[in-house]
Amino acid sequence: MILDSITDPSILKTLTTQKLQTLCSELRSEIVNITAKNGGHLGSNLGIIEIIVAAHYVFNCGQDKFIFDVGHQAYAHKLLTGRRAIMKNLRSTGGASGFPDPGESQYDHFIAGHASTSLSAALGIAKARDLSNSKFSVVSFLGDGSLSGGMIYEAMNNVGDIGNFVVILNDNKMSISESVGAMRRYLSKLLSSKSSMIVRKRISRLLDALPSRSARVIEHMLRHVVSAVGVGNIFEEFGFHYVGPIDGHDLERLISVLQNVRDVANYKPVIIHAVTKKGYGYGPAETDSTNLHGIEHEKSLRYCDVFGKKVVELATHDERIVCITAAMKEGCGLSDFASMFPTRFFDVGIAEEHAVTFAAGLASQGFKPFVCIYSTFLQRSFDQIYHDVVLPNLPVRFIIDKAGLPGKDGKTHAGLYDVALLQNFENVTIMAPSSATELEGMLEFAATSDVTSPIAIRFSKTKATMSDCTTDTFDLRCRVVIEGKDTLIVVSGNLLTNVLEAVKISHTSPTVIDARIIHPFDFETFYRHTNTHDRIIVIEEGVFGGLSNVLLNELTFTRRSDIIANIEFVNISKTPPQHSHRTEQLKANRMSVEDLVGLLKRGV
Amino acid sequence: MILDSITDPSILKTLTTQKLQTLCSELRSEIVNITAKNGGHLGSNLGIIEIIVAAHYVFNCGQDKFIFDVGHQAYAHKLLTGRRAIMKNLRSTGGASGFPDPGESQYDHFIAGHASTSLSAALGIAKARDLSNSKFSVVSFLGDGSLSGGMIYEAMNNVGDIGNFVVILNDNKMSISESVGAMRRYLSKLLSSKSSMIVRKRISRLLDALPSRSARVIEHMLRHVVSAVGVGNIFEEFGFHYVGPIDGHDLERLISVLQNVRDVANYKPVIIHAVTKKGYGYGPAETDSTNLHGIEHEKSLRYCDVFGKKVVELATHDERIVCITAAMKEGCGLSDFASMFPTRFFDVGIAEEHAVTFAAGLASQGFKPFVCIYSTFLQRSFDQIYHDVVLPNLPVRFIIDKAGLPGKDGKTHAGLYDVALLQNFENVTIMAPSSATELEGMLEFAATSDVTSPIAIRFSKTKATMSDCTTDTFDLRCRVVIEGKDTLIVVSGNLLTNVLEAVKISHTSPTVIDARIIHPFDFETFYRHTNTHDRIIVIEEGVFGGLSNVLLNELTFTRRSDIIANIEFVNISKTPPQHSHRTEQLKANRMSVEDLVGLLKRGV
Repeated sequence: MILDSITDPSILKTLTTQKLQTLCSELRSEIVNITAKNGGHLGSNLGIIEIIVAAHYVFNCGQDKFIFDVGHQAYAHKLLTGRRAIMKNLRSTGGASGFPDPGESQYDHFIAGHASTSLSAALGIAKARDLSNSKFSVVSFLGDGSLSGGMIYEAMNNVGDIGNFVVILNDNKMSISESVGAMRRYLSKLLSSKSSMIVRKRISRLLDALPSRSARVIEHMLRHVVSAVGVGNIFEEFGFHYVGPIDGHDLERLISVLQNVRDVANYKPVIIHAVTKKGYGYGPAETDSTNLHGIEHEKSLRYCDVFGKKVVELATHDERIVCITAAMKEGCGLSDFASMFPTRFFDVGIAEEHAVTFAAGLASQGFKPFVCIYSTFLQRSFDQIYHDVVLPNLPVRFIIDKAGLPGKDGKTHAGLYDVALLQNFENVTIMAPSSATELEGMLEFAATSDVTSPIAIRFSKTKATMSDCTTDTFDLRCRVVIEGKDTLIVVSGNLLTNVLEAVKISHTSPTVIDARIIHPFDFETFYRHTNTHDRIIVIEEGVFGGLSNVLLNELTFTRRSDIIANIEFVNISKTPPQHSHRTEQLKANRMSVEDLVGLLKRGV
Repeated sequence: MILDSITDPSILKTLTTQKLQTLCSELRSEIVNITAKNGGHLGSNLGIIEIIVAAHYVFNCGQDKFIFDVGHQAYAHKLLTGRRAIMKNLRSTGGASGFPDPGESQYDHFIAGHASTSLSAALGIAKARDLSNSKFSVVSFLGDGSLSGGMIYEAMNNVGDIGNFVVILNDNKMSISESVGAMRRYLSKLLSSKSSMIVRKRISRLLDALPSRSARVIEHMLRHVVSAVGVGNIFEEFGFHYVGPIDGHDLERLISVLQNVRDVANYKPVIIHAVTKKGYGYGPAETDSTNLHGIEHEKSLRYCDVFGKKVVELATHDERIVCITAAMKEGCGLSDFASMFPTRFFDVGIAEEHAVTFAAGLASQGFKPFVCIYSTFLQRSFDQIYHDVVLPNLPVRFIIDKAGLPGKDGKTHAGLYDVALLQNFENVTIMAPSSATELEGMLEFAATSDVTSPIAIRFSKTKATMSDCTTDTFDLRCRVVIEGKDTLIVVSGNLLTNVLEAVKISHTSPTVIDARIIHPFDFETFYRHTNTHDRIIVIEEGVFGGLSNVLLNELTFTRRSDIIANIEFVNISKTPPQHSHRTEQLKANRMSVEDLVGLLKRGV
């Protein structure tokens, strides 16, 4: 196996094209095997193999800096840079991260888990290089989906005439969901148009066929046309030299283009438009691009599925309900909604800022927008939430998915800050369901016209707990799940399940309150129990500063240090969580059932 | 005066062009008078008068929705929509806000204080309209500076073929600082090229001069050219019908273009490129565009000036120091730095997200980037701070200007969340100087290579207090300003000045600690005093959840409810602050000197 010999990426340079092609096949099987075992992103990683091999062949990674956008397509890069061993346990404790991480390898030059950041980071690195009179190339790997994110344009606007700055646009004609919008149409147009080389040849043949006077007139005219329509394509307007489109699976062509580019990029940034096929070389992955974007082995009814089903039901009876997602149609459970209500469904691309302000516009006209974004990506919209939703007090409904611990996706995808961020705003109602039934109740409430200010419903990526009893139908109060004694447990979200299990195992009898309304908090229910319990444990799947801040704001303001004295807060550590199974992450944060049993017993 | 008769914008429609022109002059003088008295934005408001008058003449504002981007150029709009009386006290208590606010008038259809949000909001409003089968136009007023913000591209990517969606690009060839980047160059190119109408005329004259066979060949060729370079300009690629450039001060032409557009925009979004001159019609404002962007009457040494001076001094001795700003060169005190170190100064435009990740790229290469952003705009970068700076632990230096109460700029510009946001990250050091000397010390520290993780220095827009004593030279500890008894006051930032004044007036003798290190907090100094004082007052110019959260996180974790019992927290209310003088806002938040005197006396 050739891959066995690649202990260092520079070894690639000694291989013939034929051997490099064999290497691509080997990488392909290796990635199929790795993701079959560990989950992860299959299609995108198969699609970019030739590009990565060509880049390693032409450039000197390490000295030259490789910057991946989003970064979930870096598996082949990892396999070629001395990480074959830890790739066997991809995304698990001790294994490689699913994303580039400078902490993991000297060949990863920047972190990447969120989209559209690559050009900004690459530009910073390139400017630093030029200021230090160093010489190396900065090579960014950009997916077409990332072109829907505004940061890319902010960076392109600042690229200027920087040299040795190469962007490889890996255009697989879809991001996570089908790519959307004008840029996608534009790329398709570039694909369908002939390359400018061919056009130029044809024009000169045509000119030859004309009398010379006419040819002069035509030249004159062409100058006018060009000056009127603006020269070149969008990338050229932003200052790039545009090369392409080229076949991103044609290794020989990729190598020759990259070699040319390396030599001519001295004075001008270059973008190479490479067209690839997601899942290339592996039948099943080619045909079902969405499901193979991220492979997860645990398939069962997730909270987002419950949401997706319920919102369809609600929308059937209320045409003012609209759904907005930022490139996460399937991930957020919105496939059915999208097919049933195509005019009321908006996938805006990887554009969380736009998504929120767009929803605010809809809400300002009396619509009921549900904005469905993963917790980690909602961080992108903090300012828009404040400025465009909170200040004008518009009833946008935030559906915050994958909130809490990130599991195998690791630190870049942690959803630990949403409550801490949103509780800053007095008019935002924050809820967290502890069961499918509760989520349904919350959504029923959210769909009513009683909602006149922003609300947020956060839930984790876990499967939804089924109703634990009939009382988990929703009202705007905390729910007393068990009336007990000694210890009062206040817990929000799906962690309630762990708490109830721990209660059972520990043979203790605490009072357990489901803090399904986090903000504004239901202090009435809370105070009803604080006097009769001399120990209070507050548990939330987020950093200290969420529910804890809501409680402490009130309790310090009302000078109830008697109550504060009894409270223990159990929160997720502010140290970014390493990728591993959720149960391990719970354990690391003292939230596993076992930990909770210990916590309960210590109190007895 | 014609303006006297405009009790309602519909009255404009009854006026002749000549009278409308007189109205423009009247608006111009009125705005000059208003800003002379109240401060505010002069140049941008003078530049857009004809556009606003034409828009009100052609459209039916109220039914048609007017959406302003940034919104500081809406003064003429306010004067025409029944707000002449409250415009007299612009930006003061009881007066009009400096920005559009649906809470202030039915003619303001969306809030706007931050840039690049207009198209997203407008698109939401337009989609809501189409879904409800309503008929009206959505007209956005977009400055060229807003084109540097990524959100605009996210929105343009989603515009599609929506009808009755009109964007007026008010191109005054500069945003707050001189506009930067590729888009600016691109707009200039559009300006310098002849309008496509003229070109088309010339081409058809040329075609007439050719034999018909040649003409056919040429047509063929043009099709090739167009398909190779992409049709039309960037706005057209994003789906807009582009009109322009036109003279934005030619009222007649503006009216006729808008009338045409209103009639043809049924099926396609339209962008009108109007070229204006900032400060048009008022000599002083035309010549000094930056100073007249925002007029403030209090001119003295602000914290940002202290920063600007010191960073130049530091950079003179350390070529690894670079400065980045998002369109706030002057506002952040960076004019001198920019002229002295042009290659190490980066104004990236209104692009806070890019600014942060770009800085992270520079830091990853051993540079010392100072990223200078107003607190309210740093909210845009929360995710980039987390993902690109905090996770890889890069020593980016955040200079957070205009932190705290916003004064006359009001709620859209409040800087109340920066500490609450940044204290979420364990590796970020947060400081707040209470004097010019302290800020200088902090900057000296920030410039050293000892800084190996992110740091943030926040200060308010107030003038900098001069050194109160020699002990305010900086070290990484809180500073005990006065050793006293009974009450312990912990205060961060410039509010220390108010506290010291209150101490003097109240004839009390508390201990006062300058919490210049907010996070990680200097608990050693704190604990040294908590035992000897039975009352602790913690004061910060931000919401509960900043320093308060840092303290409570530690104190609840270590179970020190004995200390918590003694603490009173004084924070800024989470209710968005209304525009008014800073002293009134301090009063509203129980932080005026008078309030602090009361607070101190109550404890005696």
